[in-house]
Formats: sequence, structure tokens, C-alpha cells
Amino acid sequence: MAERYTTVGVGLMGLGTVGTGVYKLLSRHDWLNVCRIAVRHPNQKREIVDLDTNLLTTDPFEVVRDENVRLVVEVMGGLEPAKDLVLEALRLGKHVVTANKALIATHGELLFQTARDNNACILFEGAVAGGIPIIQPLKLSLAANRVQEIAGILNGTTNYILTRMSQDGWEYDQALAEAQARGFAEADPTNDVDGFDTAYKISILSSIAFQTRVDPAQLSVEGIRSISAKDITLARELGYGIKLIGLARAAQNGAIDARVHPMLVPLDHPLASIHHEYNAVWIQGDAVGDVMFSGKGAGEMPTASAVVADILAIGNDLHTDNPTPVPGMRVQFNGQALLQPVSDTQNRYYIRLNTRDVPGVIGDLGHCCGAAGVSLESVMQKGITLDANGQIKTAAIILITQMVYEHQLQDALNRIRQLETTGSVGCVLRVLG
Amino acid sequence: MAERYTTVGVGLMGLGTVGTGVYKLLSRHDWLNVCRIAVRHPNQKREIVDLDTNLLTTDPFEVVRDENVRLVVEVMGGLEPAKDLVLEALRLGKHVVTANKALIATHGELLFQTARDNNACILFEGAVAGGIPIIQPLKLSLAANRVQEIAGILNGTTNYILTRMSQDGWEYDQALAEAQARGFAEADPTNDVDGFDTAYKISILSSIAFQTRVDPAQLSVEGIRSISAKDITLARELGYGIKLIGLARAAQNGAIDARVHPMLVPLDHPLASIHHEYNAVWIQGDAVGDVMFSGKGAGEMPTASAVVADILAIGNDLHTDNPTPVPGMRVQFNGQALLQPVSDTQNRYYIRLNTRDVPGVIGDLGHCCGAAGVSLESVMQKGITLDANGQIKTAAIILITQMVYEHQLQDALNRIRQLETTGSVGCVLRVLG
Repeated sequence: MAERYTTVGVGLMGLGTVGTGVYKLLSRHDWLNVCRIAVRHPNQKREIVDLDTNLLTTDPFEVVRDENVRLVVEVMGGLEPAKDLVLEALRLGKHVVTANKALIATHGELLFQTARDNNACILFEGAVAGGIPIIQPLKLSLAANRVQEIAGILNGTTNYILTRMSQDGWEYDQALAEAQARGFAEADPTNDVDGFDTAYKISILSSIAFQTRVDPAQLSVEGIRSISAKDITLARELGYGIKLIGLARAAQNGAIDARVHPMLVPLDHPLASIHHEYNAVWIQGDAVGDVMFSGKGAGEMPTASAVVADILAIGNDLHTDNPTPVPGMRVQFNGQALLQPVSDTQNRYYIRLNTRDVPGVIGDLGHCCGAAGVSLESVMQKGITLDANGQIKTAAIILITQMVYEHQLQDALNRIRQLETTGSVGCVLRVLG
Repeated sequence: MAERYTTVGVGLMGLGTVGTGVYKLLSRHDWLNVCRIAVRHPNQKREIVDLDTNLLTTDPFEVVRDENVRLVVEVMGGLEPAKDLVLEALRLGKHVVTANKALIATHGELLFQTARDNNACILFEGAVAGGIPIIQPLKLSLAANRVQEIAGILNGTTNYILTRMSQDGWEYDQALAEAQARGFAEADPTNDVDGFDTAYKISILSSIAFQTRVDPAQLSVEGIRSISAKDITLARELGYGIKLIGLARAAQNGAIDARVHPMLVPLDHPLASIHHEYNAVWIQGDAVGDVMFSGKGAGEMPTASAVVADILAIGNDLHTDNPTPVPGMRVQFNGQALLQPVSDTQNRYYIRLNTRDVPGVIGDLGHCCGAAGVSLESVMQKGITLDANGQIKTAAIILITQMVYEHQLQDALNRIRQLETTGSVGCVLRVLG
């Protein structure tokens, strides 16, 4: 081997859960030298035994500007000051590794451009699905494909809640409380349960898959708060599980159909067997067919595994006497994605109706759907009882539609709501596949 | 962007199923110029419409030596002349992409060394699990981990056969005939059903994961010919599926426990839900925990997807005015793997016994196992009948052991075979996990 090896100076911004894991894994490689660490509380007791406290600073810009630092690792989270720090590092020609999904989803285009302009790399495998390799495989291993669809279970908190609701028959509130007690959910669970975390991640994945910027702020996002144990039970009887899905599809005319919402997932779909805090990304490419990547989506060591893989990928290159940024690791967007309006998206739908009365209701529903151009795949009556006169009454009717446009579905729902026989529309969910 | 872009000359050796898929996918990239193609039958009718027949040659060395070819793609298969061709290409400093599992498993060490000596790359994503990204993720995305275990369903033919046996209650011969009729199995199925194909693939995966050469010829390899519908049914009742598994574990003292055999897979294990011709690789790393990669393992376009990803990874670099081989893509072995002898491996076992007589047999079995140091996890009696005297007779007893050494198990089996109450040992299989 002709190469000479040099030590690579690494600056670490953040020494919380993930940062501590990164530090531990980096200690396996003596040619990677952590030479500056930014922390919020320098006197805090830490679980790293041999930490040299002289490396610590409360000013992260000191890490970025340290002349020994050639590679900056950002694991502090949040948009500011992370954005300014990463930009400054890239402008100084330093390579950056980050696990910050909000940062990449929101400012990725600017960061990637700044990296290119300064012949630097920015990698972010840890930003999506923790330790599961997905960013590099999408950029490199699936590069020969035109991606047709990505469907991901990208948030461990909501998947844990939905799993407990499904397996234990719990309602949402009980499952959320259990997730909080086990440390899977935060005291304020909004970011997870309302789908914002998933929105960041599907926006990053679809941006890479379709090589165009998908703005997370423009996605249609629905969370899982309104999912009931009743719908989970009914869905299972019909052969489906309910999962919070980040979805991105190549639509007509170059548009991208990207959104986040709970979906009925057929029980024989690979995503249906992803339970508890596990994450998975299912990808359909025009050459490879369907592939799936699954594993634990978060936690100290899984996320650190992804961050350190990125550090090694850059570091292995810097480490020789002929360092060059790796072009295959670059991301370049062809402008802003044209997002398909939700009303123009196509889906199959699950509709649970609370009906007052049976005679005629099926026929009425059929008319409403027919008038809106919505074909039905199945109609199921549940909880049938007889009233005092011996007339059949039913508590719920479940419709599954064929593939229809959202605007057709809304038209049908409006017509159904006006029926005298319909009590209320209890739940509407989209169906995967 | 400062880079200048140049056309990269690609030489293709082989234009069969995979080669045709590669040609089609390459046509999407006008900077990749297929300038020479070696075929066996130049006058054969092909499904590529715009193929320039002037590019064809029957001498693959012409492809390797063509001065316009900077990247050689070997999709002809077989050990010779593929080995000599790839070696010659690397010695000429040309980069190589191959999907040849036998070549990489058998001669990988020599090829990787030759590549390093000549500052060239050799990539082989298509050699394992077709289009499923697994080689690059193992080399790059999981590089921060110490791999503890790899368990793979790496052969679509055998997985299809076992799936049909399980889902349709078929015996092996019927399922094999169906696989042959559908084109999933060859007329001579030896390579697949006896586990040799899986052995090549697990040897490649374990060589990369453990950075040491694992010789496929030294692996213990068992196929699926002796699996019966009866054992699949019994296993399912106990909560297991039966899969052909390529297994590699980090064992004591730096040894590697690598082997191929059918295994009982717990139904809640991710590998248990991989059916039909699908492949999957489950990896346990010390940082990431467990991750799984799954998808279709073979076929024209899935394998071509992997081959072209490798071509793009190298080509993207050659394409600029500052070409450099990508160090992260290199493979280097620390010598030859120390393989753990099968008798020293640890497993849980499923044992089906045909017993003549019931009274006392359970006690006898317990003594045999106890004398050999084999603890039992469960004992199940199946097919209990009464004889003419009203005595209980049983057709089968199924034992599941706790984790024991193979030599202990063999000791117990020898003792059991000598029991008067035991008719015969019907089936012994290892249990995953």
C-alpha cells in the first residue's frame, strides 16, 4: 500500500445521548482524534471515564474554527445555532457529519450547495431511521433505479403506541402513557404523535430519491391521536394493521406525492410486521423491485453507529495522503419539488360510518359513492342488533374503496354526511397499496 | 461546480440475462459508454433493439485490453476464464464490477490484493442477494460496528420450495417440480438445494464483516433435501418456520462460526416472514443492534440494479477531472479466518424421534440427554394412540434443547439411538436464536 496515514482531527458539537455514543465508538479508531468538544454544561458528570476535560468548551464556534479540526460532528440538534455552525464549518472547507433531521430537512439545499462550493462533504445517515443504513444505500446502492415509491415507518414512538394499541387492545391515551413511562415518548409528544418528526424524515428520503427539494413545511401531515382501538380491531378483521406512514411517490407530470398519515397496511405487506420501536423503510424501484430496510430507529448506540459510519467514510479518505471528497456522497437537487396537491392524490380508503338505521342505508351509500365516482371494494356491517320491532340495526358499516382520487372521496363523504340514515362518519383512513 | 465531465468507457463481458439488464440500465446515462461487449454467440437474436453489433466480440480479452475501456463489467459467471479476465483487467489498472459469487468467494483475496496493488477498485454488490443493497452497507454504513452475527436467507430457489412446502403442505419433490416449472429452479438443482450457492454468499458476507478470508470450501454445508412436510408442520405448531440459513457468528478466541443448514426460525423473528423467492440478510452489530435488509434476491433487473449501482459508484468518480479510487470501497483481509469446528458450535436443537413404545421413554430420553449434558427446553408428544391392550403408544416425540455444544448433542443422540424404546431419530435441525 502506497498511502501514508495521518491522524484526522474531529470536533464534536454535543455530548448528550448520541454524542456520548459517538465518542465511545470513535475511541476504537486511534487515527480519529477527537480534539475539541462543545458542551452546554462542562461540569456535568458524564459516563465517559477517560474524558479529557481540557477538550471541552461551551462555545461551539471554537470547535468549528479549531485549526486541528478537519471534520465537524454536529449532534446538538435544533435549527439554531446548528445551521450557522455547519455553514461556517463548510465554508472553512471542513467536512460535516450530522444526525440533525430538522436541519437537513429544512436547510439541506443550502447546506449541500455550500458543501459543493467549498469542496467539502456533508453526510447525515443518522438523521433518518437511526442506525438503519438508508441514506447511503439510497444514494449509492439503489442509484441505478428510478424510485417509484417510498413508504416508511420512521418514528419509533408512534409505532410503539400503535403496537401496544393493537396487541393489548389499549386506547391511545393508555399506550401514550406507557410509552412515556418507558422513555419512548417525551412529556410533550407533539413532535412524534402529530407526525412532524416523520415529515422531516420522509422529506429527506424523498429529496434524495427524487433529487429535488421536498419542503417538509409543505407536506400534508396527520398524526395518530385520532386512531381508536376500535378501528385497529376492525382493520385487523379486514386483514390490515394500522401504521403511521411517511409516503412519497413519483406522480404524474414529474410531481411528487409526499405526505404523512396513518394508513391501513395489508398484513402480508413487509411493513405490517414492523412492531414496537422498530423502524423500516420500504422502497420500490423500477429495476430492483421492492426492498426493505429495518431495525431499531433510535437510541444512543444505533444513532451513533450511523454517525460514526459517516465519520469513517469521510475519514478513511482524509486519512490517506491523497484526500479527495467523495463525489458519490454528494447530494444535488434539481430545484424545488412540484408537490401534488392532496386532493389530486390517489388512494384506497377505509371509512367507518356510524349509522342510525339499516334498511336502505347500503343502497344510499352505494348511490353517494357512485355519484362521486367512488367504486367500493368491500362493505362490512358490524355490531348488528335488532330493535324492539325486530328490525335490523347496525352500529357500524365499514367501506373499503377502490383506488380513487381524494377529491372524489371528499365528494362522496359530503354526500354521505347528508344522508338521513347516516349518523356520522366515524373514521377515514388511507390504505397502503 | 469546478469539475469537467468526461465519458467513461465500459466493457461488458456477458450479455445473458443479467448482462442485458445492465445494458438497458446503462443506456440511461449518456456519459457511460459501452464500447465493447464479449458474447458467446454474436449472431443470437437479442431483445436489445438498438444494439450496435460492431461492439460484439467472442474474445473477452479484447474487452479487457480495449484501450477505451476503463471499467470492466464481468457478468459471464463461472470461475474460468472470469478469474483470468478480471485479474488482467485489474493489472491494467482498470476497475472491475462483477456479480460472480463463486469468483469472489473463491478468489476474492487474490482479486482484492491485485486491485490494491494496481490502484483499482473491484466491486461486487450483485454477487450476494441480487438487488438488495448489502455489500456496500456492510462495508460503509455499518463500519462502526463489531458484527456479532449474520443470518441470511440467501437463495431464492430453496426459500420458494420451503415456502410452498409450508403454505401448501407439499413434500419436497412436489415443491421442487413446481419451482422448476416456474423457472425458479434449474433442471439440476444441486447448487441451490444442497446449499452451495448459499455457502458462497455467506462466505462473502462473513469475509467482509469479519475482515478475514472465509473459505467457502471449508464451511459445513447442509441443504434442504431431507426436510419433510411433517417437520415443517410440527415446527409451526411449536412456533417456528423452517428456512435455509447462511449463518456466521463471531465465536470465542477470534474464531468464526460459519455454516449453512436449514434452521427452525422463531415465527416472531424478522427472517420468518421472508417468503417465496425473497432474500433477506439479518445482521446483529454491537452498536446498531439488529438490522435487516430484504427484497427480491435475483432476476435480470434486480441483479442489474446492483451491478449498475457499482458502475455508477466507480464511474461517478472517474467521470470528473480528478479521478481517485474510493478507499472506503476497498476490502482488505487480515489473513485467513479461523473457522470454529462444527462440533464446538453452540445451538439449540429440534429432534424428532420415532418411538416404539411410550411407558418409560420420556424418562429414558431424559437420562440420555442428562448424561450428555444436554438440557431440554420442551418435550412434545404427537400422534398418541392406544394399542390393543389399551396401552398408550406414540408416533413421535419432539425435543427442543437448550443451547448446547454440537458434540454434546451428538453424544445424546448416540445414547438415544441405543435405547430399546426409540425406533429411530427422524430429524435433527438447529434452531435460530
